[in-house]
Amino acid sequence: MRILVVNVNTTRSLTDAIGRQAADAAAPGTEIVPLTPSFGAESVEGNYESYLAAVAVMEAVRAHPGPFDAVIQAGYGEHGREGLQELLDVPVVDITEAAASTAQFLGRSYSVVTSLDRTVPLIEERLHVAGLSARCASVRASGLAVLDLERDEKAAVDAIAEQAARAVEEDRAEVICLGCGGMSGLTERVVARTGVPVVDGVTAAVKIAESLVGLGLSTSKVRTYAPPRPKKILNWPPPLG
Amino acid sequence: MRILVVNVNTTRSLTDAIGRQAADAAAPGTEIVPLTPSFGAESVEGNYESYLAAVAVMEAVRAHPGPFDAVIQAGYGEHGREGLQELLDVPVVDITEAAASTAQFLGRSYSVVTSLDRTVPLIEERLHVAGLSARCASVRASGLAVLDLERDEKAAVDAIAEQAARAVEEDRAEVICLGCGGMSGLTERVVARTGVPVVDGVTAAVKIAESLVGLGLSTSKVRTYAPPRPKKILNWPPPLG
Amino acid sequence: MRILVVNVNTTRSLTDAIGRQAADAAAPGTEIVPLTPSFGAESVEGNYESYLAAVAVMEAVRAHPGPFDAVIQAGYGEHGREGLQELLDVPVVDITEAAASTAQFLGRSYSVVTSLDRTVPLIEERLHVAGLSARCASVRASGLAVLDLERDEKAAVDAIAEQAARAVEEDRAEVICLGCGGMSGLTERVVARTGVPVVDGVTAAVKIAESLVGLGLSTSKVRTYAPPRPKKILNWPPPLG
Amino acid sequence: MRILVVNVNTTRSLTDAIGRQAADAAAPGTEIVPLTPSFGAESVEGNYESYLAAVAVMEAVRAHPGPFDAVIQAGYGEHGREGLQELLDVPVVDITEAAASTAQFLGRSYSVVTSLDRTVPLIEERLHVAGLSARCASVRASGLAVLDLERDEKAAVDAIAEQAARAVEEDRAEVICLGCGGMSGLTERVVARTGVPVVDGVTAAVKIAESLVGLGLSTSKVRTYAPPRPKKILNWPPPLG
Amino acid sequence: MRILVVNVNTTRSLTDAIGRQAADAAAPGTEIVPLTPSFGAESVEGNYESYLAAVAVMEAVRAHPGPFDAVIQAGYGEHGREGLQELLDVPVVDITEAAASTAQFLGRSYSVVTSLDRTVPLIEERLHVAGLSARCASVRASGLAVLDLERDEKAAVDAIAEQAARAVEEDRAEVICLGCGGMSGLTERVVARTGVPVVDGVTAAVKIAESLVGLGLSTSKVRTYAPPRPKKILNWPPPLG
Amino acid sequence: MRILVVNVNTTRSLTDAIGRQAADAAAPGTEIVPLTPSFGAESVEGNYESYLAAVAVMEAVRAHPGPFDAVIQAGYGEHGREGLQELLDVPVVDITEAAASTAQFLGRSYSVVTSLDRTVPLIEERLHVAGLSARCASVRASGLAVLDLERDEKAAVDAIAEQAARAVEEDRAEVICLGCGGMSGLTERVVARTGVPVVDGVTAAVKIAESLVGLGLSTSKVRTYAPPRPKKILNWPPPLG
Repeated sequence: MRILVVNVNTTRSLTDAIGRQAADAAAPGTEIVPLTPSFGAESVEGNYESYLAAVAVMEAVRAHPGPFDAVIQAGYGEHGREGLQELLDVPVVDITEAAASTAQFLGRSYSVVTSLDRTVPLIEERLHVAGLSARCASVRASGLAVLDLERDEKAAVDAIAEQAARAVEEDRAEVICLGCGGMSGLTERVVARTGVPVVDGVTAAVKIAESLVGLGLSTSKVRTYAPPRPKKILNWPPPLG
Repeated sequence: MRILVVNVNTTRSLTDAIGRQAADAAAPGTEIVPLTPSFGAESVEGNYESYLAAVAVMEAVRAHPGPFDAVIQAGYGEHGREGLQELLDVPVVDITEAAASTAQFLGRSYSVVTSLDRTVPLIEERLHVAGLSARCASVRASGLAVLDLERDEKAAVDAIAEQAARAVEEDRAEVICLGCGGMSGLTERVVARTGVPVVDGVTAAVKIAESLVGLGLSTSKVRTYAPPRPKKILNWPPPLG
Repeated sequence: MRILVVNVNTTRSLTDAIGRQAADAAAPGTEIVPLTPSFGAESVEGNYESYLAAVAVMEAVRAHPGPFDAVIQAGYGEHGREGLQELLDVPVVDITEAAASTAQFLGRSYSVVTSLDRTVPLIEERLHVAGLSARCASVRASGLAVLDLERDEKAAVDAIAEQAARAVEEDRAEVICLGCGGMSGLTERVVARTGVPVVDGVTAAVKIAESLVGLGLSTSKVRTYAPPRPKKILNWPPPLG
Repeated sequence: MRILVVNVNTTRSLTDAIGRQAADAAAPGTEIVPLTPSFGAESVEGNYESYLAAVAVMEAVRAHPGPFDAVIQAGYGEHGREGLQELLDVPVVDITEAAASTAQFLGRSYSVVTSLDRTVPLIEERLHVAGLSARCASVRASGLAVLDLERDEKAAVDAIAEQAARAVEEDRAEVICLGCGGMSGLTERVVARTGVPVVDGVTAAVKIAESLVGLGLSTSKVRTYAPPRPKKILNWPPPLG
Repeated sequence: MRILVVNVNTTRSLTDAIGRQAADAAAPGTEIVPLTPSFGAESVEGNYESYLAAVAVMEAVRAHPGPFDAVIQAGYGEHGREGLQELLDVPVVDITEAAASTAQFLGRSYSVVTSLDRTVPLIEERLHVAGLSARCASVRASGLAVLDLERDEKAAVDAIAEQAARAVEEDRAEVICLGCGGMSGLTERVVARTGVPVVDGVTAAVKIAESLVGLGLSTSKVRTYAPPRPKKILNWPPPLG
Repeated sequence: MRILVVNVNTTRSLTDAIGRQAADAAAPGTEIVPLTPSFGAESVEGNYESYLAAVAVMEAVRAHPGPFDAVIQAGYGEHGREGLQELLDVPVVDITEAAASTAQFLGRSYSVVTSLDRTVPLIEERLHVAGLSARCASVRASGLAVLDLERDEKAAVDAIAEQAARAVEEDRAEVICLGCGGMSGLTERVVARTGVPVVDGVTAAVKIAESLVGLGLSTSKVRTYAPPRPKKILNWPPPLG
């Protein structure tokens, strides 16, 4: 089984980290293929960048020669999953949804801890779109930007663990979803601080993708995710190097 | 006052029709500037095309030399309005939201009649995002594609009026929002068939944009729609002719 | 165009202040006609007074010789708008709804800051009735009565600005609606304190009323707001001086 | 124990019928005092008439010399209960809410069958205000006006039973609330037709009022239903004969 | 009239206390029959114990020789009421629902104060199942276990009154439901501390059961609560002494 | 890895069928251990039987000598999963929730097709409890009892496929969850009839259980699912042969 794991930003070191996380979770016989979009923001932290990431991810997947059995969109709160589902016959799994869906099997409510305050609404909307917001206790921001997480890992882990602990105590979350990736030891530290299960979206998505492929299930094509109708698309995709 | 009215697809005849509708509704002293994206689908009928439209509209507006006082995104159920709000200091009005918001002043509930069944979920999501779904009785599809509407206007009007009438009788709608544009006489025909007020999104958006400008109000920059943070955007915008 | 702006209480100085606000926002060619009910409370701060205001406003409008093109009900959280819509063929705009509807174009969520704590539930119910509560972050009270606002403007503005700031910080509001009128400089002070757009219901209502008239739209008469059926109304209206 | 049962309209034959229903349900020792407002519509079928009824009921109760231990507002879907709660120290029970609250103890969902289609939204709003709409399967209209119900009882019962049966079969209601009163044999006929429990609002309200008085409970005065603040009420109440 | 009041746990002193509360509220002519299950936990504080209580209560009622006119399930937040409704033709009243339903007639919102934090979700779910959660401001825990309440009544009352006061001030509750029973003077103390009406579930349930019997109403048998179908039940009920 | 798959009823042929389905879906290295409760109904079709099943499943799992790595509760719409989560340290997966959670990755909305009409409310409540009802288009009943499904498989498949087709066409479901098990060829037939993905709860639950174990995740013990407190449980478990 071969799973594409597509980063939403154009920072290759983040793609690499995501790829390693995914590979660690993969079953024997699952090949993880990390993919970086050819255009877009170095980190995605808002609507403009998220919409751009949506189309960049779709074009990256379309440009991939294949074959592959499933696609994971590895961005927290980003747009675009529905478009991928239209374009592909194989299952598509978004890590925001994978984490929430997994968390719901572990506790009565979950919270997401993410990077910047401005991305909170994006995550809330994505959880709503996926039908996963009823048991979401809160989406909290650590206040650190995506690239800061890479630069000062200690401070990042502290800020994230602090918000996770407040989610458990104040918002009554029973599970934490980490809405930011690529940090070694983050999961363990948050478990230690809060005493609750901590779900990482990338690894959760790998297991869900494997499961869907294993069950022979893929996207319904009956209405919302039917393939795009044949039509003229002007000046697209762009002539990128 | 100068208002950009941006089409979401790349069919110039539709841009022209939208521009005429907007100009008819504009107050004396309001200049309507119709804009067509430089890339994207000739008609937008699904998620892939809608996401592409979102970025195409954003780039079209960014490429416009200005000045302008407000922007109207003239697509029904399309993504992207939030990104425009991040990029701009002037008010942004989406016609889906303008129609629904106006309809709520006219009756206890409203229905939207749109083109294809597959676009129904997109419109439902956009109304939710805008906080305008509580009084939405239904979103109904005429079954006709966007470009079919142009080709056989008689059949299009009949199909739309039929769904509007069913919305009033079966779904208890008291107002109809037309989720498809560019047809002469459509509004009058649906009023005649249903006996309820019919709201056209483009004209409603023009009045709302004028009102916001007149009141000196624009997008809040405090959190969700703060300007994008300075960062490296790789290979973007594309080198289009 | 001639717009009746009806105060909900019987304090003429408040009618005058509302009339001035409305006139300032009106387009050239719009005539604002302020109206004071002939019976009812000097200020409306609860359900008994609000119900009484509902019928007093309806009788004031019925007693007006006309003609007029639209009616604005200038009370925050008051009952009665639905009754006016039954009685009239012209559009009716409630300032509570006008403010919220306008705020939704400016940010992802809004809060209302009003006078007394006891009026919070009334405003919440009116926003629900209008389908405008989904993006309402909170309704907060300054703790000052309506007539106190007139008496000590400095203290009033401070108390209101304080609650507005807390709405932005604690409730994540991105826009503030002012649920109390008649104070010069209030809007500017709250903008200065919070950094977010501040919407005044009276001015918002004027623009919406003008827009509806301009678009040739009025209340749907198909069900909820059909004219009252012909019947005997005993001892009403009362023989007031 | 003495309970005022206030009709919402000015038709004394309806007051009498309501009074008889109430007296039949009352415990030994409970005295039912029927009351007719001194102004307002002969039947209440819409918002204008409902708002007028709200104030007429409040004035009728205020004009009553007392003493009484509880008040029942005997109108289906009418405004005003909150105002009565402000004015009085004794419990206030609305029959719309009494019926729904009782129905919820009898089945998983209930439907209301009322008179005219235009009153459906009023009932829906009142159930929402009371926190009783979650298990409401539907509000259906028989299409007959309130006074028609008195004139042709056979046709009325048939139309109501037909809608009740459809509520059970199509809307999955398990209990029926009768949103119209004064007909002999109506309850039995609807039970016979549908096989489900049928709740009459007036009798349900009597038992709830007796229970609240028996338990020594009355309206909370802490916020929403605090007594009106002392203030000047202009020209009110009206000098009615 | 004869009403079974079934404790959910196997501690007879609690059954006695509940029985006394019920008898105090009962009308002349109502006989209260307290019942203790023959198996299950000495106190119920979680899902395992609650599910066990559900079947223990059902078996206790089935084993009772009768006759009886109604059954009250006297546990706060416990499972099982739906099963009793299937088994019986007489009305079944759960005290969680009785308290909430009564509270809704007394104020715009209510809070429940219960024993341990872990029982909060159970109560929330039961209120949802009963359609009574819309006006629930909060469910708060005193932190004291059920049996602690018996052991140190002074500390228990203090802890409960403290949470009740916070519910009124912070959560805007206007009525308090006591989600724990058997303490003398508790209601009076919480009223004194908060100034709002305090509802005890056992006494509320007695009045509702009496009312339903008095009105000749019982559980709808049309779908959800139809009697169990005839079938083989293996090894059940257990051969208990 | 060893997974207990617990039937909710006492019919061993159904346990066997469930065990075979689970084994077919299991990864190499996963051992499926089917388990039948020692008491309870031969088929579960209502609340009384469902509550009994809840405790029977819990006792069956407690009586199992172990070790095991996860538990699957194989009943559609049954109570009890929360209790198992309290009792165990390993993950617990309910097939109702597994199916719905999996379906949400495949389409925008899903419907459940189950056996009898009376079980529809139980399934709806379980989906609500699990936070999975927002994208549930409908729960439909085939009208056939659980044991009928075994007796006349042809008729059963036809009735189920018919309801599935109506869910897709009338309720706009994009995925079907089968709320009844043990039939060969059912999935394929429903896929053929509807053209949408069909999810079987047992196989979905196996993959989710494997995934949770693989990720090292288990139930949060912080609040709702904390182990039962030490206390006296009277006469339980029963002395069953």
